[in-house]
This record gives sequence, C-alpha cells and structure tokens, in this order.
Amino acid sequence: MSLVLHHLRAQGGRSRAQLAVETGLAKATVSSLVVELIERGLAQESEISRQGAVGRPGVTVELDGTRICGLGLAVHVEYLALVALDLQSNVLHEEVLPLEVDQLTPDQVLDELAGLVAGAHRVLDARGVTIVATGVAVPGVIDLDEGLARFAPNIGWRGIGVRDGLADRTDLDPASIHVENDAKMAAIAEFAHLSDHALRDVLYLTGDIGTGAGIIADGELVRGWSGFAGDVGHLPFDPARTPCSCGRVGCWETQVGLLAFLRRATVEGDPARNRAVRLDDRIRELLRRADDGDLRVRAALARLADDLVAGLSILTDTLNPRAVILGGYFGFAGKYLLEPVGAALAQRWTTPGSEACLVGSRLGLVAAAQGGAQHALDQVYLDPTLAVRERVTDAVQR
Amino acid sequence: MSLVLHHLRAQGGRSRAQLAVETGLAKATVSSLVVELIERGLAQESEISRQGAVGRPGVTVELDGTRICGLGLAVHVEYLALVALDLQSNVLHEEVLPLEVDQLTPDQVLDELAGLVAGAHRVLDARGVTIVATGVAVPGVIDLDEGLARFAPNIGWRGIGVRDGLADRTDLDPASIHVENDAKMAAIAEFAHLSDHALRDVLYLTGDIGTGAGIIADGELVRGWSGFAGDVGHLPFDPARTPCSCGRVGCWETQVGLLAFLRRATVEGDPARNRAVRLDDRIRELLRRADDGDLRVRAALARLADDLVAGLSILTDTLNPRAVILGGYFGFAGKYLLEPVGAALAQRWTTPGSEACLVGSRLGLVAAAQGGAQHALDQVYLDPTLAVRERVTDAVQR
Repeated sequence: MSLVLHHLRAQGGRSRAQLAVETGLAKATVSSLVVELIERGLAQESEISRQGAVGRPGVTVELDGTRICGLGLAVHVEYLALVALDLQSNVLHEEVLPLEVDQLTPDQVLDELAGLVAGAHRVLDARGVTIVATGVAVPGVIDLDEGLARFAPNIGWRGIGVRDGLADRTDLDPASIHVENDAKMAAIAEFAHLSDHALRDVLYLTGDIGTGAGIIADGELVRGWSGFAGDVGHLPFDPARTPCSCGRVGCWETQVGLLAFLRRATVEGDPARNRAVRLDDRIRELLRRADDGDLRVRAALARLADDLVAGLSILTDTLNPRAVILGGYFGFAGKYLLEPVGAALAQRWTTPGSEACLVGSRLGLVAAAQGGAQHALDQVYLDPTLAVRERVTDAVQR
Repeated sequence: MSLVLHHLRAQGGRSRAQLAVETGLAKATVSSLVVELIERGLAQESEISRQGAVGRPGVTVELDGTRICGLGLAVHVEYLALVALDLQSNVLHEEVLPLEVDQLTPDQVLDELAGLVAGAHRVLDARGVTIVATGVAVPGVIDLDEGLARFAPNIGWRGIGVRDGLADRTDLDPASIHVENDAKMAAIAEFAHLSDHALRDVLYLTGDIGTGAGIIADGELVRGWSGFAGDVGHLPFDPARTPCSCGRVGCWETQVGLLAFLRRATVEGDPARNRAVRLDDRIRELLRRADDGDLRVRAALARLADDLVAGLSILTDTLNPRAVILGGYFGFAGKYLLEPVGAALAQRWTTPGSEACLVGSRLGLVAAAQGGAQHALDQVYLDPTLAVRERVTDAVQR
C-alpha cells in the first residue's frame, strides 16, 4: 500500500493497469490495494474521457487530498504555530499565536497548544477532515522515542514530556504524535518545497531567540547519534564570551539571536520589542526604518550579517550545502542580509563551482509547524494503515 | 547477482535452497546466479558433512576470497600507500612508500603510484588474484565523475587527472578507477572496520601535513553537493591568522597539521623531521621522548590537544557523531591526546548521554588506501559483472 501511495504522489494519477506495470505488482494486488487506499481516504477515483476512444471511459486512481491531514505544531520562544496539510501538502489550516513562551510554565504552554489543536479540530471536522498524525517542533534537543524535550534552554525546558502532555490534553493518540527539533522540522518543510529536485544538500538556519541548523545531506535529514546534530546556536563563535541561556559562554546565538539584534537595532520601549506583535511584522517595521536611513537599524543589520558570516563560513565549509536557507527573522531581513552574507561566503570558496546559494525561507513563521505536518504525512506514506478505514467503498475491483 | 552477493557477505555461507528462501528469488534463478558468481570468481562451493544426516552431503555457497581483489592507493604528502583487499576485506598485500610528494610534479607522483601498482600486480598475479576495481585517495577536493583532483593545496595539485593519468601508466581500465578525497576514503575504511554495527555516526579526522574530515551520518558518507564536505582543515580556527597553503589565513591545519607540530616539538635537524623515515616511526620516537620527560615534546603535544579541542568542539556540536576517530599522526600520538581531548569535549555536552567517544585509528598509515580498496570492492558488490567471467565452471545447477 505504501508503494502504491508513494507512486501516486511521485507520478500523479494513473490507471490500475499502469500502476501494476510501473510498480511490478500483480494487477489483482493493485486493485485490492487501491480499494483499501480509497476506504482509508488516501486515494480516489476519477473518470477520464479519452478523446475519440471507444468503449467505457478510463478510470484514474489519484491521491485523495480531501479527507485526511497531517497536523504540525511548533513551539517558538515568541509564538506558537499550527499547520494542517492535506496528503498533497496543500495547507488546509494555519495559525500563528504570539505568546511569551519563556514566561510560561511548560504546562501552560501545553495548554495553549491543546487550545490550538481544539480550534483546528473544529475547522477540520466541519470539512470532514481527519488528523492522522501530528508532528511537534520544539527548539531544543529531542528524545524521539520518548517524545521528550531533553533540553530547550531558551524556553527553560528540561525533560518535558511533550508527546504525553499533548495527548493528555487532546484526543490525539500518543502513538500518532512525533516530537522533533524545530530546525530539523523546518528543514524538512523547506526541503519538501524546493522546486529543484536535483538539490539534495541543504542547510536551514532558524532565526529566533536562539538559532539552530537543520542539515539535509543527499536528501536525508542528519540527526546525529543522539539527535543534536545541527545544534549550532551554541558554537563558540563569540570572542567576547557573552553568557548564554545554555549555561556556557560565547555561544553564536548570543550574537545572531533575536534579542541581541533587537538590543542593537532599537532602544528600550521601542514597539519592535513588543512581543505581543507578530515577529514578521516587527522585523518589517525595522526594515522600513532602515530603508528610510535609520543608522541604528542599519548598523545592527550590518553587524548581524558579519556575525552570520562568521558561523556560516564554518558550517558551509564543513557541510558543503548547495543551498543555505535563512529562516525566521533572518529570512524576514533577507533584503539586507542575503547579498552581503552571500558575497562574503563566496570569497571563501577556493574551488569554482562549489558555491552555496543563500536564500530566504519561503515558509516564514510557519516553517517548523509545516515541517511537523510534513513529517506527520511522511508517517502515513510509510504506513498507510495510520489512516483509519472508515467506510467501505463501492469501488469494484477492475 | 548483487543481491545474492550482498546476502552471502552479510549472512555467510549457505545452501542454494536457503538463499532462495531468504532472498525471495526463485530457486532456478538462484542456481543460475550462483553459477555465474562462481565463474566470475566471486563465490565458491564447499561440501558440508551434516553429522548423522543420510543422503548426499549438503553443498554450501560462500564468498570466494581467493581470486579477485579491490585495490586501494593513497597519496599523502609524506608517503604513498597501497592496499589490496580480497572480497571478504582481508588484506592480501600492503605497502607504504615514504616520498616527499610535495617536492615532486604530479607526473612524477603518478609514475611512483604506477610503480606501486606494478609491484602489486606481480605479487597478486603470482597468487592468481585479479584486480577488479581501484580506489585512489588524494588529499583534496575531488571531481568524482572526471576522476580529477580539483584542488589539493598541500601537494600543489590543481585540476590533475588522476584517473586518466594512472590508467595511462598501468593496465588498469580507467572505468574501474575511482578517485576520492583521502579523509572520505579513510572514513569508509574505519567505518567498515567497526565492530559495533549499531554505531552509525562517525567523524574521522586525518592527521597529516593537512587535516580533513570524513563524515559518516547514519551509515552514509556525507560528500556535500560538490564533494568538499569535511574540508575542515581550512576552517578559520587560528586567531593568529597564520598563512596557509590554500591561500587563506588562520586555517586550522596551520595549527594542528604535522608541520606545526614538528616545529614545536623538535629543532632544526632533528631526525624526527627526516621525511625519508616512516611517519609512524617518527611520532613513536617523539612519544618515547615525551615519556622520558622531554618538555619540548610534551608542550607541543599539550598545545596540539588544545588546538584539536578548538575545532572538534565545533565539529562534534554540529554533527553529533558517536565516535571521533583520530587518524594519521593524531592516532599515533593517541596516548597523549585521547584523554585530554576527550575530557575537554565531554565538558561541552549539556545533555547527558550524548557524548562522542574518541578513539585512535585502527588502520594507521594505510587507512585511506584501505578505504580505496574497500570502495573498489563496494563497486563489485553493486555490480558483480565488474569481475570478468574467466572460466566456465563445471558446477551443476542443483
């Protein structure tokens, strides 16, 4: 069933006969698998009229985007986000909730997440859409098996049971909830959105209070042996040895993190520091000021570019990605960052034709949440039985 | 054929009937594939007497380690190395030739490599062993498709056609020659040698005039999009901005490279600087002096440990490997490096149970050459027809 489903995703709608030839499965097997995929709300049939052909019209099997979805949730220091994606990765529902997560207890944050899920349920139920799996992005080191945030210093979490805490507060089955690091989730989403399928090596950098990398090497997410590969926010790139939330000093994110940037770009009481306002709107306001010649903002952007170059030089030399995707507030400020950072990195490359291209995130604030939803859908593609067989179809085995 | 061959490698000798059951292939198919594997010198039969069983004895099919080999060659700044491995990765032949490669032209070095190949040919021919593929390790950025060393600053190579140059000088078929970066080849060899098969994330660090990393993530070699992932010797970890052979300043290998170490550990004219002597012997001599209390050597080793920590902190945070393997001269000096470097790295980890373990290379001077041979064998496992069908066997299809 997984094979047929993957094939439909990759190749688009086609007849049972074509599916049999292309997958190498017997025609009878394909027919019964298709019936089951339809019953699980994963595939549907549509009649195609073949111009000029005689006899009964052909029947095409295609993905059914309408009845199931993957849900993605993301915890960021300054907001929560939710995205529901249908099987074809179309956005069914999306929400961003500004929230001072670092000022709340983990329980309070899980309550808020549960509230978002309840809201999404109402919208999705009304449309007859079932949630089949959920991915939760958290800015820290994750224990995949336990669904646990082991250490997320910027929100003060250590050993928080995200999967079970969320299952307790919602009707989501704990086995259907997958917790993963935010940068890794965002990298999954951005990678799935690339239009150039030859592009297999990508580095995604989150731009939030903290920063972290999602590393895709030859099309596969690099997790490391205990899941903290890409934990680059705490690399010692700050010679001034500024104290960091993680307990160490001189971490990269004390320089490129959002707080350092806002401290440099604004003064106390500036509305751009108002955490009740969406981050993208606050950064856009600062860019407007830079456009108008605000020297303080311009200097902060120039300093940010330099500090990004310091770390990205090392990461691109080590990993040789084809694309570096600047996420979060780095992406919103792309207009002032992409060109100088890209130019500085290009100077390093000693072998022509090895350059990484620098781009801003296409998904913005919801990248990690969308990655969560994408990750949830990936579970369904791997195991289509996650979608419950809800109705018996009248489709005949042709 | 590849499936059967992989299965024999992973599972060991077994009957045709077992092979059919375990691979899912038809028994007749297995029988004809086995005949062909035998004809190509990749498999052999042996009779097993089953204690107490009646009827004719069982016949087991197993890998034939005796008639074909993968050849590995490695160019290092201070020596060349050659390793021939049989299909079961046993060493058939090995040679290390001290050579001041950076003082020779690329043509002269290729001549010397061809000489090593000729010598190996004589040994292997006498034993009836055929070379089926060759892997060549070069300390630089490689163009895989063209078999070209794009940029290898420590030996002054830029755009050198290693594959064609070697094919011209030997009877090796250019299509059977694969060129790859030395750290990547060494990582392949060390990874294949790990006894713990649960260990999937490894960082290998070469210790030569230059240094580079071979990154294995979840069992796969990370190359990056243009092949220079792991080119960590030129990371800007030297605040004193020492000029480097690559044309930049402040590169890590200006501090941890062999030349810097020898300059610190010895004075002009010291026999440890004599490049005609094997590197492992020279380093062992320096360790003896350190054991005897030589303060100069001890200080150089302590400094080397500090400089290794500076870079490895960043690489282990970024990649989260389970094991870090110190190659080349780092490995030979492991007695003075493993403990202090490991302890300093362990202090960084904020989440318990995430530690990388630090070990010395098991393969020493021939790690990269052995990786070349391993890489060559991998080609045969992927495409057994690389082994020429030399004789028609009288094996019957049972």
